[in-house]
Amino acid sequence: MTNRRGRPRNPVADKAILQAALDLFIEGGVEGTSIEQIAKRAGVGKLTVYRRWDSKEAVIAAAIESARDEIPETMPAEFADLPVAVLVEQALPGLAEAVADPRLRAMVARVFGSSVSHPALMATYWENYVVPRRRITRALLERAQADGMLDAAADPDVLIDMMVGAVLFRLIQPEPLDAAGAREYLESVYRRAGLLEAPIETPVRERR
Amino acid sequence: MTNRRGRPRNPVADKAILQAALDLFIEGGVEGTSIEQIAKRAGVGKLTVYRRWDSKEAVIAAAIESARDEIPETMPAEFADLPVAVLVEQALPGLAEAVADPRLRAMVARVFGSSVSHPALMATYWENYVVPRRRITRALLERAQADGMLDAAADPDVLIDMMVGAVLFRLIQPEPLDAAGAREYLESVYRRAGLLEAPIETPVRERR
Repeated sequence: MTNRRGRPRNPVADKAILQAALDLFIEGGVEGTSIEQIAKRAGVGKLTVYRRWDSKEAVIAAAIESARDEIPETMPAEFADLPVAVLVEQALPGLAEAVADPRLRAMVARVFGSSVSHPALMATYWENYVVPRRRITRALLERAQADGMLDAAADPDVLIDMMVGAVLFRLIQPEPLDAAGAREYLESVYRRAGLLEAPIETPVRERR
Repeated sequence: MTNRRGRPRNPVADKAILQAALDLFIEGGVEGTSIEQIAKRAGVGKLTVYRRWDSKEAVIAAAIESARDEIPETMPAEFADLPVAVLVEQALPGLAEAVADPRLRAMVARVFGSSVSHPALMATYWENYVVPRRRITRALLERAQADGMLDAAADPDVLIDMMVGAVLFRLIQPEPLDAAGAREYLESVYRRAGLLEAPIETPVRERR
């Protein structure tokens, strides 16, 4: 165990472990997941799991992060000089697809569900994944405020909660959205947040 | 069992059952709750529970509703003729107290957590509790639109999701809000939604 950091990683085993951990977490939550089950489903020994992670919460947090890697960032860094409305437009199709994905829905429900009962998981996930993402989004909102696109009095953190919170809340409501519905929903949220122009205004401006 | 509806209710037993169901749900989620445990903790026989409810999901949904009764309605019916901003102001202290309550936090986390794994619970709760509440809120938002307080192009359902979603999302984040912080947070959300005026404007208007 003292040798943990020194051991070479096995990417194939790691991938199988993370996949098994995510599946078990989605199926049964933190309560329904154990290192033993993760190891069994991944086809590795328990020690192989313990060599890389200290606790089931740590494996699950890593598994959630690995799944999120497939989901596009709201504001990709390579578009840092583009207007915020253009960035939102470009992110929309990927985001809509993610919102319509039943697996993301199930994962979000489980993360929310474990937030109070297993604060260690939420804290790890928040610190490692959510905080850096919010930092980028906050910087972009502040740019939108400097550009006069967004009300300078708006609290960026509250605005982020309203946008992300609406989508997360919609995800767990009955009658899930399909990709087209998700796209429409996201447009409506961003428009209301002041980050997309109203669809009526754009053609009028371009007409002259 | 065929006689279920005809039997006189026992309010003391009902209250103990709902309290036990809510405690168990908060402690262990739907997975960690059984009719047997509910009966045992309430100090009644299993048949007493089954006489009133068909499934553990039905008892839990009723228990969530009974807990929510203590939480003030956002828009009390007796204030139906007052301006929406006044209604929001009046609802704020009670809402802030609810948002700062660790038990509501735990309950919200569990409801979210069971939304995908136990859709029957979410469907029951949504239909019986959330839909009527949203109907009232939607009517008030449409009044605010008619009064010119709120952008007529705003989709009331999306706006409700943004307000409620922000609060629910904030509830499950690390570093929970105390009552004063919750009050400030809610004011910021309602102001951003266009349902409260900016704090700077009010004294200026009243000064003349």
